[in-house]
Amino acid sequence: MSMVCLSDFEAYAKKYLPKIAWDFFAAGADDCSTRDENILAYKRIHFRPRMLRDVSVMDIRTKLLGAEISFPVGIAPTGFHQLAWPDGEKSTARAAKAMNTCYIASTYSTCSLEEISAAAPGGLRWFQLYIHRNRTVSQQLVQKAEALGFQGLVLTVDLPYTGKRRDDIRNGFRLPPHMKLKNLEGAFEVCEMSLLDPSVTWNDIYWLRSLTNLPIIIKGILTKEDAELAVRHGVQGIIVSNHGGRQLDGGPATVDALVEVVEAVEGRVEVYVDGGIRQGSDVLKALALGAKCVFIGRPALWGLAYKGEEGLQEVLRILQDEFHLSMALAGCARVSEIGRHLVQFSKL
Amino acid sequence: MSMVCLSDFEAYAKKYLPKIAWDFFAAGADDCSTRDENILAYKRIHFRPRMLRDVSVMDIRTKLLGAEISFPVGIAPTGFHQLAWPDGEKSTARAAKAMNTCYIASTYSTCSLEEISAAAPGGLRWFQLYIHRNRTVSQQLVQKAEALGFQGLVLTVDLPYTGKRRDDIRNGFRLPPHMKLKNLEGAFEVCEMSLLDPSVTWNDIYWLRSLTNLPIIIKGILTKEDAELAVRHGVQGIIVSNHGGRQLDGGPATVDALVEVVEAVEGRVEVYVDGGIRQGSDVLKALALGAKCVFIGRPALWGLAYKGEEGLQEVLRILQDEFHLSMALAGCARVSEIGRHLVQFSKL
Amino acid sequence: MSMVCLSDFEAYAKKYLPKIAWDFFAAGADDCSTRDENILAYKRIHFRPRMLRDVSVMDIRTKLLGAEISFPVGIAPTGFHQLAWPDGEKSTARAAKAMNTCYIASTYSTCSLEEISAAAPGGLRWFQLYIHRNRTVSQQLVQKAEALGFQGLVLTVDLPYTGKRRDDIRNGFRLPPHMKLKNLEGAFEVCEMSLLDPSVTWNDIYWLRSLTNLPIIIKGILTKEDAELAVRHGVQGIIVSNHGGRQLDGGPATVDALVEVVEAVEGRVEVYVDGGIRQGSDVLKALALGAKCVFIGRPALWGLAYKGEEGLQEVLRILQDEFHLSMALAGCARVSEIGRHLVQFSKL
Amino acid sequence: MSMVCLSDFEAYAKKYLPKIAWDFFAAGADDCSTRDENILAYKRIHFRPRMLRDVSVMDIRTKLLGAEISFPVGIAPTGFHQLAWPDGEKSTARAAKAMNTCYIASTYSTCSLEEISAAAPGGLRWFQLYIHRNRTVSQQLVQKAEALGFQGLVLTVDLPYTGKRRDDIRNGFRLPPHMKLKNLEGAFEVCEMSLLDPSVTWNDIYWLRSLTNLPIIIKGILTKEDAELAVRHGVQGIIVSNHGGRQLDGGPATVDALVEVVEAVEGRVEVYVDGGIRQGSDVLKALALGAKCVFIGRPALWGLAYKGEEGLQEVLRILQDEFHLSMALAGCARVSEIGRHLVQFSKL
Repeated sequence: MSMVCLSDFEAYAKKYLPKIAWDFFAAGADDCSTRDENILAYKRIHFRPRMLRDVSVMDIRTKLLGAEISFPVGIAPTGFHQLAWPDGEKSTARAAKAMNTCYIASTYSTCSLEEISAAAPGGLRWFQLYIHRNRTVSQQLVQKAEALGFQGLVLTVDLPYTGKRRDDIRNGFRLPPHMKLKNLEGAFEVCEMSLLDPSVTWNDIYWLRSLTNLPIIIKGILTKEDAELAVRHGVQGIIVSNHGGRQLDGGPATVDALVEVVEAVEGRVEVYVDGGIRQGSDVLKALALGAKCVFIGRPALWGLAYKGEEGLQEVLRILQDEFHLSMALAGCARVSEIGRHLVQFSKL
Repeated sequence: MSMVCLSDFEAYAKKYLPKIAWDFFAAGADDCSTRDENILAYKRIHFRPRMLRDVSVMDIRTKLLGAEISFPVGIAPTGFHQLAWPDGEKSTARAAKAMNTCYIASTYSTCSLEEISAAAPGGLRWFQLYIHRNRTVSQQLVQKAEALGFQGLVLTVDLPYTGKRRDDIRNGFRLPPHMKLKNLEGAFEVCEMSLLDPSVTWNDIYWLRSLTNLPIIIKGILTKEDAELAVRHGVQGIIVSNHGGRQLDGGPATVDALVEVVEAVEGRVEVYVDGGIRQGSDVLKALALGAKCVFIGRPALWGLAYKGEEGLQEVLRILQDEFHLSMALAGCARVSEIGRHLVQFSKL
Repeated sequence: MSMVCLSDFEAYAKKYLPKIAWDFFAAGADDCSTRDENILAYKRIHFRPRMLRDVSVMDIRTKLLGAEISFPVGIAPTGFHQLAWPDGEKSTARAAKAMNTCYIASTYSTCSLEEISAAAPGGLRWFQLYIHRNRTVSQQLVQKAEALGFQGLVLTVDLPYTGKRRDDIRNGFRLPPHMKLKNLEGAFEVCEMSLLDPSVTWNDIYWLRSLTNLPIIIKGILTKEDAELAVRHGVQGIIVSNHGGRQLDGGPATVDALVEVVEAVEGRVEVYVDGGIRQGSDVLKALALGAKCVFIGRPALWGLAYKGEEGLQEVLRILQDEFHLSMALAGCARVSEIGRHLVQFSKL
Repeated sequence: MSMVCLSDFEAYAKKYLPKIAWDFFAAGADDCSTRDENILAYKRIHFRPRMLRDVSVMDIRTKLLGAEISFPVGIAPTGFHQLAWPDGEKSTARAAKAMNTCYIASTYSTCSLEEISAAAPGGLRWFQLYIHRNRTVSQQLVQKAEALGFQGLVLTVDLPYTGKRRDDIRNGFRLPPHMKLKNLEGAFEVCEMSLLDPSVTWNDIYWLRSLTNLPIIIKGILTKEDAELAVRHGVQGIIVSNHGGRQLDGGPATVDALVEVVEAVEGRVEVYVDGGIRQGSDVLKALALGAKCVFIGRPALWGLAYKGEEGLQEVLRILQDEFHLSMALAGCARVSEIGRHLVQFSKL
């Protein structure tokens, strides 16, 4: 099987993963409108490519809060990587490090933060957390992540309750007994999302701030109002995200929400986006609309499902090559040349 | 068969109901454009969800003309429930009461108002009526409903003649001989819609007013002009409805018409909407656009077809849970926090 | 087979007509975009129906240049009716008379004007003509039509050359040898369209005017500029038409062009429309946008193909009933109450 | 097999060409959005056809930089014609000359410029070139083309690197060993695109200008900004092109980009367009939007694949006839009568 583009990895994963695992990764909330809109929205954005620019020397590197990455695609936090590949998040960490990009490890990892760190020492990693009813759990996780060299905290704010994913209900999805949520062992039962705290508000950002010196990135913002609040509460970054369409069905496509968030933020903090990235030109579109970097969720899992660390590297390399080529064909030799002028929204 | 969402009940009903009954419930006028638009229109409305609101204590109750219901979904008037389940409207009444919501009983019920009342004493019920050529019939029905404790009169105004439903014509649809329109026994022949009075005008609202102290809700309004007339003629509520797309094909989707009706009414009377509600987030969208409550028609019949009272309760419980979850995920802890700011119309 | 709506007749004709005849009637130019747009455009128009109007006494009659017809649907000029039914245009004339509406007989009829007149004496008929290179032929036809009691001349202006209809070319379409273009016998060879004069201009309207006292209706106008020219050149009526999408592919849907023509004409002459009418509500939409009457082409042929005169009457009766019902459901008791306020264009 | 329209040739080529050759010609970049948009965009443009113009004497000739061609359709530069027909570009040159139109010979021809010239002496031809890292190669090609009587130089500017065409990668596409890039023999390896110079900028236009007296036409412009730069750098013509959707996926349809380029250029140089032309009415639309001429790529290859020179002539004759007919049906007797007033963009 020849792996030419991300859809090839998707097809592989759909064919070879157990149905229950495929369904879990593919799931969107309700009738999956938002999940699918994330992809469709990119099709409605057209380039205005410029010609006869010197693109002989390309530089596609960028920086995430000051840390250089080889190209503006990181790995979004997703749970349960052992469902895709036996080594789970250890493979993910190795692939990210090999490709010199950022990996946001999920609280719901099937490897512990220690294992993840040990698997790829020195890799750029952020830690994604939820705020639990039992704040001590969250506090311990934050402090462990900081101690282990994670360089950012990604607070997910769109999951006061878990979205309704029909296939997971039909399948009675649960983590298989031989897999563990290593970061929560002893603290909770497996998959016991109801231990997340739905009473969290903006004030809890101050509490989080008090626990750590790490930069705080807030994930799940979709409106200019919340973007403004995020800036005012002192976060360092915003990930425009709808949780891959797995939470509130009927929300906007993330690339559409990106526009209003970027406008509201006016450069005061870095803005990133996830959801719907399927080819390198999507990355270019997101950057043209003001994202500093994009993060991929499902495609990373497809890469793991294909060949673990190596498969994920292949996925990242394809995206890197495609992004590189799209930039050149659009007339940009450096990431700093990408701007709003490069795209227009289709009237259709 | 696992009943996870409303489509599961639809699939069940389509599979197990006699074709003639399924066709009757599913029917839309002409080529069913309006029936289908009712559903599609919800897909074009996107949320602008807000994060980090305290949604730990949710309150999804609302009030219909002062009467509390457990969540803003009632049961729209539809006829011939015995086609779906032997106990017919008695089951419907019981399910509505069990779920603490409002049931609008149709004139074309296959149980009498007395039977409906006796089946679920104390339940919140409104009575839907047409104005017949023989006004005495309508008058007697109104007075009976009032005497039996119905708390509102829903006057359907979009059926001066019956819409053209092709499949019903092809099937030669008639109520089976062992079912009766109990409220009209002795007064008319079964299904004899032509006894409805197509000469009814706004002045007849005054006549209706003179018969009863019950609040009058007018069902079938689709324009701001008629909404204004309704308010001026002293009704207490408006149901924005196109009769499930069964009357005039080519009319607007109800959720689109809702916007102009709400704007015209400016809060002077309560506005409700029916048509196209298929998941809890649709309810949230309708409320964001100004509806006080939505009513479901076909989904209630699918619930009855599945397991009678119990099946309808399941349908209502699913909608309730989905609405509850959507509210929380959109950042609203109370119905009063839902507002126009929560949604936008897709440019596509 | 139960004939409930026009699609039933279409399905019948497609099944039972010889392929070559079906293809000829169904043909559109090139890839048939305009033919199909004629139908789709109606779907993008939504009603704003009004309620509680007295619609007990309906009057759906209208007048064409002063002559009353039973409802605002006439029969557009189409050729070769014997391909659909042995009696050809004689059946068409009888059905139109029986339904008390107007039939526009085509120059390319397979019955002579004399036969058509004799088949249904006293029926309201207009005669459709082209201007031939040999003007004497056209002059004789005009004068014969006038002498036979035709009450209007419909000059088709969108056929300086015949459109490219791929299936007709593939089929090598020709009229079967036993059928004749009776009105042109002796004058031309069968189907010899190239004898039409592509040099015709607006000045030829004056020449036509000089030949006859009949009102002149111009068929094939699609722009406000040409509508203005038509009025200035003294025609009595305009048929907004794109020849059923059989001439220039890529032209506008007729109901879309209707809007600009009606605006330009400002009531100075009557405006009609053909193309894409498939149900009674389409008629209502066209009238709401300013058409005085619509004309049906292919549906009339389907009716003929089904049962000749009787089949065409069935088609007309269905449209009449549907139009009647749509009017009532939209709140109009008389044709004069139909207006622009009744419709809106979908934003989608 | 009856060849009635261009799709017939497409179907033939798809059926009879080796898959690897068909895939190469059909290929678009990435998921082919832009390739397909080129065609769809024409469907969104509607004519505003005018009637009763004298179209008895039609003149569809036009001029390309002063040289008369029989109708405004030329042959775009595409490579590897021997993949379609043994005689390759020699057949193309003969067909173009026979039809009295312009053929833009590609650098990546499988016949040499000398062979092409000898095959059809006196034909109107332009030469398409890339600028190679080794400028001497480009210089020699330019001077050879000029010496051989080519009358224009078409500089392709949208290929600093080759677009990602998935099927070509899957197929391992390479030119078969018995075919040669005759113009580059000795200079490069077959298909070695990486020898193109991605550092080319607008200043290289001055270098090119210094090599030759031929008019320079720049191919691949999609924005008003680049159109302005092209004019300022002294080119004689612009081909609005996205390389048939084979380079940057997500770019605009060429006919949409044409509008902004024409507006920017304000008649200072000639503007042409390629991509998506599939019937004569598309040509008319492009001209109405300001193109002086269109060029066809894939349809020319389908013609070659069908019957070589003769097949390509058939393709051109069909387009010519369809363009002729469309012009007449839209009311234009001469190319100079075609203008912006003739078209409108669909609101949908």
